[in-house]
Amino acid sequence: MLKGPFLSRDWMGSVPDYNEAKIVMIGLPFDGTCSYRPGSRFAPEVLRPASWGLEEYSSVFDKELCDVKFFDAGELEFPLGNTKASLDLIEENVLQVYKDGKKFLGIGGEHLVTLPALKACLTKYPNLAVVHFDAHTDLREDYLGEKLSHASVMRRIGELTGFHNIRQIGIRSGLKEEFELMSEYGTLIHRVEELECFRDKKIFLTIDIDVLDTSVMPGTGTPEAGGMSYKELCGWLYYLKDFDIAGADVVELAPDYDSSGVSTAVCAKVIRDVLMIL
Amino acid sequence: MLKGPFLSRDWMGSVPDYNEAKIVMIGLPFDGTCSYRPGSRFAPEVLRPASWGLEEYSSVFDKELCDVKFFDAGELEFPLGNTKASLDLIEENVLQVYKDGKKFLGIGGEHLVTLPALKACLTKYPNLAVVHFDAHTDLREDYLGEKLSHASVMRRIGELTGFHNIRQIGIRSGLKEEFELMSEYGTLIHRVEELECFRDKKIFLTIDIDVLDTSVMPGTGTPEAGGMSYKELCGWLYYLKDFDIAGADVVELAPDYDSSGVSTAVCAKVIRDVLMIL
Amino acid sequence: MLKGPFLSRDWMGSVPDYNEAKIVMIGLPFDGTCSYRPGSRFAPEVLRPASWGLEEYSSVFDKELCDVKFFDAGELEFPLGNTKASLDLIEENVLQVYKDGKKFLGIGGEHLVTLPALKACLTKYPNLAVVHFDAHTDLREDYLGEKLSHASVMRRIGELTGFHNIRQIGIRSGLKEEFELMSEYGTLIHRVEELECFRDKKIFLTIDIDVLDTSVMPGTGTPEAGGMSYKELCGWLYYLKDFDIAGADVVELAPDYDSSGVSTAVCAKVIRDVLMIL
Amino acid sequence: MLKGPFLSRDWMGSVPDYNEAKIVMIGLPFDGTCSYRPGSRFAPEVLRPASWGLEEYSSVFDKELCDVKFFDAGELEFPLGNTKASLDLIEENVLQVYKDGKKFLGIGGEHLVTLPALKACLTKYPNLAVVHFDAHTDLREDYLGEKLSHASVMRRIGELTGFHNIRQIGIRSGLKEEFELMSEYGTLIHRVEELECFRDKKIFLTIDIDVLDTSVMPGTGTPEAGGMSYKELCGWLYYLKDFDIAGADVVELAPDYDSSGVSTAVCAKVIRDVLMIL
Amino acid sequence: MLKGPFLSRDWMGSVPDYNEAKIVMIGLPFDGTCSYRPGSRFAPEVLRPASWGLEEYSSVFDKELCDVKFFDAGELEFPLGNTKASLDLIEENVLQVYKDGKKFLGIGGEHLVTLPALKACLTKYPNLAVVHFDAHTDLREDYLGEKLSHASVMRRIGELTGFHNIRQIGIRSGLKEEFELMSEYGTLIHRVEELECFRDKKIFLTIDIDVLDTSVMPGTGTPEAGGMSYKELCGWLYYLKDFDIAGADVVELAPDYDSSGVSTAVCAKVIRDVLMIL
Amino acid sequence: MLKGPFLSRDWMGSVPDYNEAKIVMIGLPFDGTCSYRPGSRFAPEVLRPASWGLEEYSSVFDKELCDVKFFDAGELEFPLGNTKASLDLIEENVLQVYKDGKKFLGIGGEHLVTLPALKACLTKYPNLAVVHFDAHTDLREDYLGEKLSHASVMRRIGELTGFHNIRQIGIRSGLKEEFELMSEYGTLIHRVEELECFRDKKIFLTIDIDVLDTSVMPGTGTPEAGGMSYKELCGWLYYLKDFDIAGADVVELAPDYDSSGVSTAVCAKVIRDVLMIL
Repeated sequence: MLKGPFLSRDWMGSVPDYNEAKIVMIGLPFDGTCSYRPGSRFAPEVLRPASWGLEEYSSVFDKELCDVKFFDAGELEFPLGNTKASLDLIEENVLQVYKDGKKFLGIGGEHLVTLPALKACLTKYPNLAVVHFDAHTDLREDYLGEKLSHASVMRRIGELTGFHNIRQIGIRSGLKEEFELMSEYGTLIHRVEELECFRDKKIFLTIDIDVLDTSVMPGTGTPEAGGMSYKELCGWLYYLKDFDIAGADVVELAPDYDSSGVSTAVCAKVIRDVLMIL
Repeated sequence: MLKGPFLSRDWMGSVPDYNEAKIVMIGLPFDGTCSYRPGSRFAPEVLRPASWGLEEYSSVFDKELCDVKFFDAGELEFPLGNTKASLDLIEENVLQVYKDGKKFLGIGGEHLVTLPALKACLTKYPNLAVVHFDAHTDLREDYLGEKLSHASVMRRIGELTGFHNIRQIGIRSGLKEEFELMSEYGTLIHRVEELECFRDKKIFLTIDIDVLDTSVMPGTGTPEAGGMSYKELCGWLYYLKDFDIAGADVVELAPDYDSSGVSTAVCAKVIRDVLMIL
Repeated sequence: MLKGPFLSRDWMGSVPDYNEAKIVMIGLPFDGTCSYRPGSRFAPEVLRPASWGLEEYSSVFDKELCDVKFFDAGELEFPLGNTKASLDLIEENVLQVYKDGKKFLGIGGEHLVTLPALKACLTKYPNLAVVHFDAHTDLREDYLGEKLSHASVMRRIGELTGFHNIRQIGIRSGLKEEFELMSEYGTLIHRVEELECFRDKKIFLTIDIDVLDTSVMPGTGTPEAGGMSYKELCGWLYYLKDFDIAGADVVELAPDYDSSGVSTAVCAKVIRDVLMIL
Repeated sequence: MLKGPFLSRDWMGSVPDYNEAKIVMIGLPFDGTCSYRPGSRFAPEVLRPASWGLEEYSSVFDKELCDVKFFDAGELEFPLGNTKASLDLIEENVLQVYKDGKKFLGIGGEHLVTLPALKACLTKYPNLAVVHFDAHTDLREDYLGEKLSHASVMRRIGELTGFHNIRQIGIRSGLKEEFELMSEYGTLIHRVEELECFRDKKIFLTIDIDVLDTSVMPGTGTPEAGGMSYKELCGWLYYLKDFDIAGADVVELAPDYDSSGVSTAVCAKVIRDVLMIL
Repeated sequence: MLKGPFLSRDWMGSVPDYNEAKIVMIGLPFDGTCSYRPGSRFAPEVLRPASWGLEEYSSVFDKELCDVKFFDAGELEFPLGNTKASLDLIEENVLQVYKDGKKFLGIGGEHLVTLPALKACLTKYPNLAVVHFDAHTDLREDYLGEKLSHASVMRRIGELTGFHNIRQIGIRSGLKEEFELMSEYGTLIHRVEELECFRDKKIFLTIDIDVLDTSVMPGTGTPEAGGMSYKELCGWLYYLKDFDIAGADVVELAPDYDSSGVSTAVCAKVIRDVLMIL
Repeated sequence: MLKGPFLSRDWMGSVPDYNEAKIVMIGLPFDGTCSYRPGSRFAPEVLRPASWGLEEYSSVFDKELCDVKFFDAGELEFPLGNTKASLDLIEENVLQVYKDGKKFLGIGGEHLVTLPALKACLTKYPNLAVVHFDAHTDLREDYLGEKLSHASVMRRIGELTGFHNIRQIGIRSGLKEEFELMSEYGTLIHRVEELECFRDKKIFLTIDIDVLDTSVMPGTGTPEAGGMSYKELCGWLYYLKDFDIAGADVVELAPDYDSSGVSTAVCAKVIRDVLMIL
């Protein structure tokens, strides 16, 4: 046999054995309902090598990735063009993660992949709360007639968890009626203290990476001016580090629009931060 | 009112009135079953301004676009993520084109858009032959279980027209069984004379732009080494100029992978050439 | 006739009829005196499709574009290389806009296009004030001997309106003598309250998009470090919403330097914001 | 003083002293009448460092650049936006080159820069012939009313030299009347032997780099499908090596459309080849 | 455990078990002596996902990758900046491959990686011949004083195997003395028949991907105009399919200069072709 | 001789004569130990033309470059792949600068180039302090066994100057032990006042341009989220303007990752700012 040494093909800092892990990272290369610029399907594949450009140690969280026992399961293979079957495949695998007593970390793909993952998480924790970072409300009843759309994912999730169990951060784009829905339920928050109501709940954390400003994150499907800096997002995650997060995902990186590679580098760091608080 | 002059927003050389036209150009921004690099949905939108970089006159065909009466209808708006409804929308509109006694020219989008257009054409001309330029056979029975896929479009078409009514040019990639199917029916041809069997038939011409070599056409979803030069493709089209072409389309330009803009420029010229022979 | 539905080729939210409109948007694809990176001529053409990536509703202004009656007139066609004739063409068309009792919104093109538009506006409102967002003073007496230059446009405008009728925001680059001129007339301001002197005047608003930081707006001809964030610019526009703005333009987007597309997306949003306050 | 060694800032293989040189290379960063994609103004500046990626030795011409005594004069500084003054500046400097008994090699910039250079050459050699490589005829009477345009440069030149003194190679785009003009004077040729009529004449060689196919030369203002390979162009130049070339230029490289850098690399090699035959 | 299905992270068509394999593919991400455009270190990492864009079946070789038993060992991890130690690491691992009775296929990295691999192969087959595809001779005695350089790799190899055991194809750039060396030993060949002298020998095949024309392969460190098309290269490989190839490598893809992704796609196909003939 | 005028090939505002200069700018195109994305070797070459996009006057420092007497020496030519010899070459030239009673300004290249320059400066000023802007600690004992690495440069420097003579600003990435070393010596500072301890010392200022946020500076080898804006960096430099800076460098711009050109533009401006305070 060859002695190598060979570079690892897994995410930096991951453990090689599923059984040893407390967290299971699954790539979800699905962008079938994308309405504008497609290609988030390529995100998990480019994030893995990019992860090796990071340090394992985070000075913010004063923690090393080797202290976080996570397993990199790879990317699911989807039946192309069949949204329903794709979502079922996600749900089934995430259910298994929770059945095995582990936490789930999804790497999108478009935002619709959150729906089946959250369903699976909800099976284990029926009283789940959702913390949602995004530029867009994603609260449409449907998009051009389709109910299963990235633009409707939070509406579908709210129907499952109740909208009072959702808090949304960074939202700056949507229809008038979506903003009214946020007002009605008070989902849109602006200060970390507004998260306190979820202090004793299990939380699913979903980060649409376009919550970051277009200057920080050009590589996404629907860039929207006026977003957060990385430091602001990191501040929110730091606040969440003592909350009880049962599952999470980071979605909507679109590498084809990231010619400099920095969107991917920033997204990889956000994922490292999420790993630190899971 | 303003006097302008204003730049035209239609394809260079098109006529402003549907009724005046013999050919109707319709943009088909659909890429829902794309298995590799998406974004052909953006092709019609970038081809229109690029058309103004061409001359109206073609020295090869010694003809000006103003002699070709074509109407630029714009792009259809599709229900995103609903393949079936999208294809129906195409079929319905192309049926109308033929009902109005005109010829159809489709601008893809992915190759699956050819299926409903051809169905509509077949309604008018039941004995239709198909001339197919492509790098890929597109003859799969299904792709990951899906029968309505860009990788299966010629299989579906062959089921409608009979495979003996198909000739394929430039094919260099496919499964072993797809190549065997081509052998069985003799669909794969290499010389213009092999088109003679279609001399007296109505023809539907479908050009997947990846028939061109990767050096000529980087901006496509599934680039495949070993293809034609533009001059070779133009030679085939020149040979076809005395055939009876009842409809045509040009598909699979993916502008996101065309940073220099030349794929778009070449594709616009191919469309101009097709207009010259329709 | 075809039933479609077809995607609109006009700016999102525009009205189809000139007579119905209160605002007329005209594309001004001119970059003839550009001294550094050219290509702002392509801005109007790429902004239109990009506008469809925005929502019609702005939560900042709590208003929808359908409430703003604006007409998208398309792009003027210029005699290439003839600066004088190009500027005359702009002036003539903008004069007509004001004659028809409407407001003008110009989409550059380079900053020199502001001069003829402002002249036309001044014909109607002789006591016009100018609010100018830019990274550069644009106050040169001439540029390499040329008096009609994007680098001299505010000097020429000041000669028409008087420099005391100008306020400049975001300026961070210029010659020593240009900064001295700004000091002499107090044109350079840093706080929104400094706009109050224009409270009762008709205002022409001109935004050189390079007022935004290079991180936000790489796609411009002369990027200059140390600029505003989008939120800051939006704050200024919000403050201006109760002022009486008689005309406006947004200039200097250079799409060739915007490989990720986000400069275009941000610029389209700025234009939407300007539409909200016109 | 510093010992270095420092990298040269001149073209690879050039001599440091004007007086020592037989050929004078002058950069002409002018693109003021460009009708489509601008930026050829940046070509001389990027070609110089790219020249260092070449070998000094050419195996085709079996010759080294150090055997060609050429001086790299740098780039002329133009009064921006003033076409007339820019052309005069070129003419004046090229006149001096011929007055000093040297040959001129121009590096464009757009094709219009050929006009004043050729005028200067014509002063010395009144019976000059012109060999013109291009995708476009450049024979328009005027372009949008302008007689001094890159699209009219060969028309203006023909008026000076007589059209019978012009041979054009690689032309594949133009108006019907331009092709008729070429027919009338037999300027368009396809085989090297057709150059023989110029065997005993002084020749000015002008190469619009878009004569190369779009696959070879994406980085140009008006890319046109169906062009030459580099090897074909090199073959023509090889044939010309025994002709009496009195001056030359290579124009229309547009570096902003050359994200891979290969257009620049190829253009640098063409310039090296021209140096070999001057 | 998770059921997936998960996408494979190995090269398409590879076998999962080293012992089962006849061929061992090793990534060699080393570009330490690159003199011009660096980044071939990233080639193995991008080629793997790109391999999944190919079909397993090659119609040229009428063979499927599943019939080729090859193992994808991953990328070696090199001590950065230490050329000597890096080359030793390669040699040691390739020696093991031959000790285990398998063939080696290296994926560069820069061309210098060929030297230690060839040394290892030579240990097993002392009478080895070398077939070398490249744009450059790589026959320099040294490069800026360094003997271990990508520009000297064939010189070093010739010193080991004898220059009469080398045939070079596609060479079009080098110093005068390098071309003279090629003449002296007759290494440079232009027709497939000239390979016949190696009919009964063990062959090491080394392909510097810049042998392809710049239009086909922009994504390489030292692009050189006037190269082969993919079809020509494929023709040479087809001829070699009945020769006894004991080892091979494909080097010098530089993904940072491949914005469209087609260089990577073409290189992946060349590797597939090499796998077909190994 | 030619009259021109010709564009300057030196940095904007530099003096033509070494003897006249107080500051000597030397380009250091070395990136031999780069562990991630290479190409900082190209930075000096692209910064020079980019410098001409700046104004000579800085309104922040109220000073013009013509008041700063600096000489642009050009780029050193390095023996490729020989780290030791390259560093010696730098040291030798910088020693000469100080021997001639001038100040040194280095333009990297990677960060390791700071080591020999600082050594030379230390020869003249043995009690030198170091102010270090960077995203990374650069305090590793070694990197993959190599002690001369960009990741170890500050460790090597601290061994020469003592770590108590170092202040580090903007650091946000490193190993746990590196952060502990910074804590031990208090090198990491966050407020300008913490620089006061160096008020009476000679200072060497070294700026790794990745201290800027990824949104501002995508074009660098190891982009790291959460960095400074340009304004923040400029604020630090403004504070330093009354300190006694004996030498400086700006390193790690990687132009290949700067498709929009703004990283280069920002870096050029930072260099202008450093020239203002030297």
